[in-house]
Amino acid sequence: MPSPPTETPRREMESLDPADWEEIRRLAHRMIDDGIDHLRDVRSRPVWQDMPPAVREAFRSGLPQEPQPLAQVYDEVAASVMPYPMGNIHPRFWAWYMGCSNITGALADFLAAVQGSNLGGGNHAATLLDNQVVDWLKTMMGFPAEASGSLVSGGSMANLIGLVVARNVMAGATGVDVREEGMAAARPLCFYGSDQLHGCHRKTMETLGLGNNALRRIGTDQRLRIDCDALRARIATDRADGRHPACIIASAGTVNTGAIDDLPGLAAIARDEGLWLHVDGCIGALLAIAPDNAWRVAGLELADSIALDPHKLLHAPFEAGCVLVRDAAAHRKSFAVDSEYLQSTRRGLPSGDWLYELGLQTSRGFRALKIWMALKEHGVDKFGRLIDQTIALAGELARRVAAEETLELVVEPQLNIVCFRYRRPGLDADRLKAVNVEIMLRLQEQGTAAVSDTTVHGTHCLRAAIANYRTRPEDLALLVSETTRIGRTLAS
Amino acid sequence: MPSPPTETPRREMESLDPADWEEIRRLAHRMIDDGIDHLRDVRSRPVWQDMPPAVREAFRSGLPQEPQPLAQVYDEVAASVMPYPMGNIHPRFWAWYMGCSNITGALADFLAAVQGSNLGGGNHAATLLDNQVVDWLKTMMGFPAEASGSLVSGGSMANLIGLVVARNVMAGATGVDVREEGMAAARPLCFYGSDQLHGCHRKTMETLGLGNNALRRIGTDQRLRIDCDALRARIATDRADGRHPACIIASAGTVNTGAIDDLPGLAAIARDEGLWLHVDGCIGALLAIAPDNAWRVAGLELADSIALDPHKLLHAPFEAGCVLVRDAAAHRKSFAVDSEYLQSTRRGLPSGDWLYELGLQTSRGFRALKIWMALKEHGVDKFGRLIDQTIALAGELARRVAAEETLELVVEPQLNIVCFRYRRPGLDADRLKAVNVEIMLRLQEQGTAAVSDTTVHGTHCLRAAIANYRTRPEDLALLVSETTRIGRTLAS
Ligand SMILES: Cc1ncc(COP(=O)(O)O)c(C=O)c1O
Ligand SMILES: Cc1ncc(COP(=O)(O)O)c(C=O)c1O
Repeated sequence: MPSPPTETPRREMESLDPADWEEIRRLAHRMIDDGIDHLRDVRSRPVWQDMPPAVREAFRSGLPQEPQPLAQVYDEVAASVMPYPMGNIHPRFWAWYMGCSNITGALADFLAAVQGSNLGGGNHAATLLDNQVVDWLKTMMGFPAEASGSLVSGGSMANLIGLVVARNVMAGATGVDVREEGMAAARPLCFYGSDQLHGCHRKTMETLGLGNNALRRIGTDQRLRIDCDALRARIATDRADGRHPACIIASAGTVNTGAIDDLPGLAAIARDEGLWLHVDGCIGALLAIAPDNAWRVAGLELADSIALDPHKLLHAPFEAGCVLVRDAAAHRKSFAVDSEYLQSTRRGLPSGDWLYELGLQTSRGFRALKIWMALKEHGVDKFGRLIDQTIALAGELARRVAAEETLELVVEPQLNIVCFRYRRPGLDADRLKAVNVEIMLRLQEQGTAAVSDTTVHGTHCLRAAIANYRTRPEDLALLVSETTRIGRTLAS
Repeated sequence: MPSPPTETPRREMESLDPADWEEIRRLAHRMIDDGIDHLRDVRSRPVWQDMPPAVREAFRSGLPQEPQPLAQVYDEVAASVMPYPMGNIHPRFWAWYMGCSNITGALADFLAAVQGSNLGGGNHAATLLDNQVVDWLKTMMGFPAEASGSLVSGGSMANLIGLVVARNVMAGATGVDVREEGMAAARPLCFYGSDQLHGCHRKTMETLGLGNNALRRIGTDQRLRIDCDALRARIATDRADGRHPACIIASAGTVNTGAIDDLPGLAAIARDEGLWLHVDGCIGALLAIAPDNAWRVAGLELADSIALDPHKLLHAPFEAGCVLVRDAAAHRKSFAVDSEYLQSTRRGLPSGDWLYELGLQTSRGFRALKIWMALKEHGVDKFGRLIDQTIALAGELARRVAAEETLELVVEPQLNIVCFRYRRPGLDADRLKAVNVEIMLRLQEQGTAAVSDTTVHGTHCLRAAIANYRTRPEDLALLVSETTRIGRTLAS
């Protein structure tokens, strides 16, 4: 066993609080001014630029031993961090499906850190506010007030939490207490989703001890929606083989193309077959608040659990995901533990809700505040209209693409994701892919636009995910003209 | 299938950006001023106060439909949120083991949200900075540079990620690919920890499909450290019973009393028996940087994986946890997935590291910035001294408690957690517990101090967890005098 040194010196009391509050106040005001300028002027900067070697080098320096004035540290942030972002707050960022943050949310993150509360729970304002935001999200989804929910780090965790409950309930129905006995005791459970499922579901299956093999990937139709007949057939086969069909994971907005599975159809299958219906609505669930497009996700309210993602279509700064579970008791039953060091009381601090009993985190940040402030400021109706706006923009991009001789619309968009590619007669698939990847990289390196690439039913293509509230029609016009221009250059 | 309405109206383009940047700038400056005053004056406020009914009521209002000026929203935050925190930033908050946030971290959270990057990865500054912070944490822990790590939402998730790798590696050694086949295919794995383990490990065992039964809770000695002989015996029994001993979870700082298991001893057992050694260092791992107390966690560097918690002893605003894994390949192998929509390139945005391949999140926030800025500003040495300072304060509290006739020190503190209780001759255990709970609640309701309660080897007690860099000796004097005073009142 280690043993202590003989003598320990006495030292002065220290603190992380600044010696001079006025000095840090001045610096903080500078940060605020710079931050606001940064957002105001985002359109005038490149969407992305590579870092020069000196900047890369700076991020290799070792653990700082000695103190340094915060003003100097901030200078380094201003010089090396702010100019080289991923780019997702830029009007022409469409590379991956994510939100653009917003000034109110950024200020809320500051206030949350100042207020400092731990959302593990307890009797304090942040707990009530967290619950209120979950209630609002239930309302948006058409979920009953008695349903349960929890704010989490993002959509991946929201899906995982929902699927833990699904697993425990469905194994429980076969008489196995998975929490106590583990998966080895359970009959083999099967989960079902389309071949377009987001990669986080694979990780969840693996993490939960269900195994990737137990995730049945069902084929999709031309519009990339799960084939319900094939699903029914697979469930029947699994049952015949002695397996235990447990859960359907519906996609309300796939990552590749934004496809929305037939939610009422899947709800009917789940009901007929006695399965849990989980909806991965990280991309599309919030369509429920969009006046022109809510019809696309009708049936969402039939789910047993929903994962949605305020850091996507509500543009909360990272991180903010949410899981909703219809059966509140089942939700709590999957995560509640009784700890001697966290006993409830009838008064005082330990008399509030223990929010940590609804998921895997113990300490939890005050992420609710950024959602709450932005929803109050803008009203939910505006967020709905902004979603409609991005879908309309995607439609516009699709029309522009279709109008170009050298571009091909790979799938008709059903949401705000447009899959397209540059094409030229005489190029084989490999060459086409190389050309399109090169177009993607040059668009980024020029600082013009960030799109990503993917493969849809075997066809490699570029992908513009327009969740962005800063995008305007002229941005899309530029994307089309630059894509065709670069394509021409490459082909000649 | 749902079908669209016949006509959709054309609308004006909208945005979440403010119509008037100067107006929001003024308001942002007000928030900064208020925030700084809030921190500067924290000592003059009560550590905790209950919310009046009107404030509670405000958190029950429904989903806001209509917009509202941000200034009004902020007024509500100032009136209803800021005055009713959990209290953990207050100098006399010792209820649970957590950090106190800090002004630099709060500003960093603002800047991170403005910069906006998604730390799922890619080639941009935040990715490099995130890697750098992980490297710094490896240095602090004495881990090799080739080791791997990931910033996560907190200690619970850090433990979970480490234990997923442990499970997969150990099941893999028996020839089972858990990721593909799930736990049903694996031999029953056993995990070992002390009876003082944090509750998050139970949740992890359950979530991972291992089951709570597979978590062997080994008894502890008088100082609450795992009994190494009992552990060896239990491993032998499990092996004899055909089970597969897989992993030791050492506690470097237990939640109840701060006990630190015999890390070199456990490392030896793990080596002899071929087990994975995971250290839950959420409370104590950072002692490694504390000059007077690093000896207490000698052996930490022998772990296969470590969970530590920058939002505790580095006082990063929530959320910031970190997992380190010695075998970088094993870490990645547990979480990497190949997604058609996230292919790497040799140039451009997709040419950076994919950090999401080291855990369960896809989108990840820029939590690294707050750790980075505070470490640069203060230097790691100061954080080490602050840890020593809290341990010295805990020693001081223990001495004050021991000097009081009516107080009893329940365990000699080995770290910065003090377990003690009010006592009076003639009170039985139930009555003693009731009196101590009432003292705890009155201390909170008076706004004097926040302590929690727990039960240690059957003895109910109060618990002061002094992670707090704002605590001064006089705060502890007040705790002692008020505890004895309230106790006297209750007894008479
Ligand atoms: C359909 C879908 N599900 C889940 C996720 C994961 O969400 P997050 O990145 O918030 O973890 C995404 C992310 O883009 C997604 O598109
Ligand atoms: C020993 C120990 N492990 C794990 C945790 C969980 O850490 P977090 O709250 O960051 O999830 C805690 C929290 O206090 C802890 O004390």
